[in-house]
Amino acid sequence: MAPFLDHVDDEETTSNKSRVTVIGSGNWGSVAAKLIASNTLKLPSFHEEVKMWVFEETLPSGEKLSAVVNETNENVKYLPGIKLGKNVVADPDLEHAVRDSDMLVFVTPHQFMEGICKTIVGKIRKDAQAISLVKGMEVKKDGPCMVSAIISEKLGINCCVLMGANIANEIAEEKFSEATVGYRENKKTAEKWVQLFNTPFFSVSPVQDVEGVELCGTLKNVVAIAAGFVDGLEMGNNTKAAIMRIGLIEMKAFSKLLFGSVKDNTFFESCGVADLITTCLGGRNRKCAEAFVKNDGKKSFDELEAEMLQGQKLQGVLTAKEVYEVLSDRGWLELFPLFATVHEICVGRLPPTAIVKNIVHTSPAPFIMELCSTPPNEAIM
Amino acid sequence: MAPFLDHVDDEETTSNKSRVTVIGSGNWGSVAAKLIASNTLKLPSFHEEVKMWVFEETLPSGEKLSAVVNETNENVKYLPGIKLGKNVVADPDLEHAVRDSDMLVFVTPHQFMEGICKTIVGKIRKDAQAISLVKGMEVKKDGPCMVSAIISEKLGINCCVLMGANIANEIAEEKFSEATVGYRENKKTAEKWVQLFNTPFFSVSPVQDVEGVELCGTLKNVVAIAAGFVDGLEMGNNTKAAIMRIGLIEMKAFSKLLFGSVKDNTFFESCGVADLITTCLGGRNRKCAEAFVKNDGKKSFDELEAEMLQGQKLQGVLTAKEVYEVLSDRGWLELFPLFATVHEICVGRLPPTAIVKNIVHTSPAPFIMELCSTPPNEAIM
Repeated sequence: MAPFLDHVDDEETTSNKSRVTVIGSGNWGSVAAKLIASNTLKLPSFHEEVKMWVFEETLPSGEKLSAVVNETNENVKYLPGIKLGKNVVADPDLEHAVRDSDMLVFVTPHQFMEGICKTIVGKIRKDAQAISLVKGMEVKKDGPCMVSAIISEKLGINCCVLMGANIANEIAEEKFSEATVGYRENKKTAEKWVQLFNTPFFSVSPVQDVEGVELCGTLKNVVAIAAGFVDGLEMGNNTKAAIMRIGLIEMKAFSKLLFGSVKDNTFFESCGVADLITTCLGGRNRKCAEAFVKNDGKKSFDELEAEMLQGQKLQGVLTAKEVYEVLSDRGWLELFPLFATVHEICVGRLPPTAIVKNIVHTSPAPFIMELCSTPPNEAIM
Repeated sequence: MAPFLDHVDDEETTSNKSRVTVIGSGNWGSVAAKLIASNTLKLPSFHEEVKMWVFEETLPSGEKLSAVVNETNENVKYLPGIKLGKNVVADPDLEHAVRDSDMLVFVTPHQFMEGICKTIVGKIRKDAQAISLVKGMEVKKDGPCMVSAIISEKLGINCCVLMGANIANEIAEEKFSEATVGYRENKKTAEKWVQLFNTPFFSVSPVQDVEGVELCGTLKNVVAIAAGFVDGLEMGNNTKAAIMRIGLIEMKAFSKLLFGSVKDNTFFESCGVADLITTCLGGRNRKCAEAFVKNDGKKSFDELEAEMLQGQKLQGVLTAKEVYEVLSDRGWLELFPLFATVHEICVGRLPPTAIVKNIVHTSPAPFIMELCSTPPNEAIM
């Protein structure tokens, strides 16, 4: 076959293939890249290569992180010991990493999202689709804004979300997990994301409820802080279960008050009750909150994060602050004693024992329980 | 004051006071007696004395259990190290223990319930009220029968239920817990039970849904067996959370299929998601199921129960069998892969790894998810 024809064939075949960039290379970002790379190798509708934007760091050895990732096929800092797949290419240049891709996977600490959007706006493909794995929200003058909404607004593209019971290291070891994709209208787009992430050990389901899925992923970190306080106080499993139950009710009520479109069933998906459980059992927010109590509050969360998380970020404390601002702004503080108390403990205004004392006999308010039981919206999966 | 008048006064005052008997003196029964006794000492509407029927056993020392309980004020076999309260009186004679009481608290392994009812029928007060803390169901020719229904039917009295995130030893240590009282119609009766059990560290809420509350308490033991298998296989928290999530969905769907009156919100009470969590973290069903896997199925659950539980009974394996009979009888086996698989593993027809393999991509069925999201009944707490 003549080289020319060969080339044309190749162009034709590849022109419809999607190109994926993972924006972020922390613990979860690296695992997401690995999952995706295992699928792009097999599925004909995707380019094999997966770009992964690496926020460049100089390692203690003096080498650059991105160079080491490409040499060893491992993220030696955030996911050591796990091969990412040879088709994962680390790129420290954000603009370069995103410019050819039509599928953008956002997975960074949420405080970096505004800056990332500013850098890439106008420099991405017009037909690009986004998915956010980012937990957290921004509280602005006119109310809370979810990360998926920030991406959609700043970049002018559609944005789904993926959340679930996903302790990253367990997925890296290919232990069975589930996850939920939240989408707005276009089910076909959701199905493409499901195709990209789904593996025999990572079972992904789509749900038409972006805000519900995203708020589950975000708010569970606040409940995990509460659960960590209970662990630090050595109050046992009954108390911890009570706190998680009340936390789940506040998550649901808060989500439904903010967005009337949020569906009841979302809380029974992996992003809901399952993610809450796994995060309250093993996550980093729980762990740092436990340490906060064990150190009698003498070490701040900033110090604990620096000591315990090897460069990873703690979302729960920040989210608790943002949620507190919303509650305070709207006069809802008394309706959400658990959320409010977590923040008050984090900033040292209340002792950790308040996590039980403040919610007993006051939470959940009848209004909140009733809100939880309103009929689900008409469109059920 | 003349002795006669004194006597009359005393009669008048006490005639309206309720007398309580706890039927059962295992781990949970002893804790229940302790909770109740702390309240009857304080509340004027109850006689101080709490009778506790003890299934008589001879201890290794040659002494009778009931005599030792009364001498030491401790249940040395099932709750060692905890004082029950001086107003708890152990009685090995069942008929004698119940005959004067108008409040009967049933808390024995459920396989003993039929025999107990046979013994006391016609020998209790006509105005007696019952509450069941018993987990399990009987499967009869014409369908499953809950323990509260057996009590009501056999004894001709009203029966409430109390369930919740209640690992007994933690309550004995006065660590904070919650519980749920399920009642049928008479809210005043429910409130009297709440009064009897509620303490500053044991927060009880009433819900008008006997079957929902009772099925939560019963079915969660089957899910705990599944969670124990996952622990034994060392599959991690994501998998465990996924199994617990699917278990919760099957609990809800099964309950609603059996009883149309079951309410959605019941699953957000302590008896629902909270009890599921605490039982899957620390309960005896989870523990024995983990050991079953670690021993490669070479030890039966009967052997593990004898070895590990010091005379306590394992409810989950029995309930799994009963649930399997219902599923099989009604042609629902495929709708409830988790419940069905737990039983198949328990009896050795499937390997423990089936707990994940059999439910991935098959559970929960769309029908089951939809069933979970039907609007709650009109009467919301």
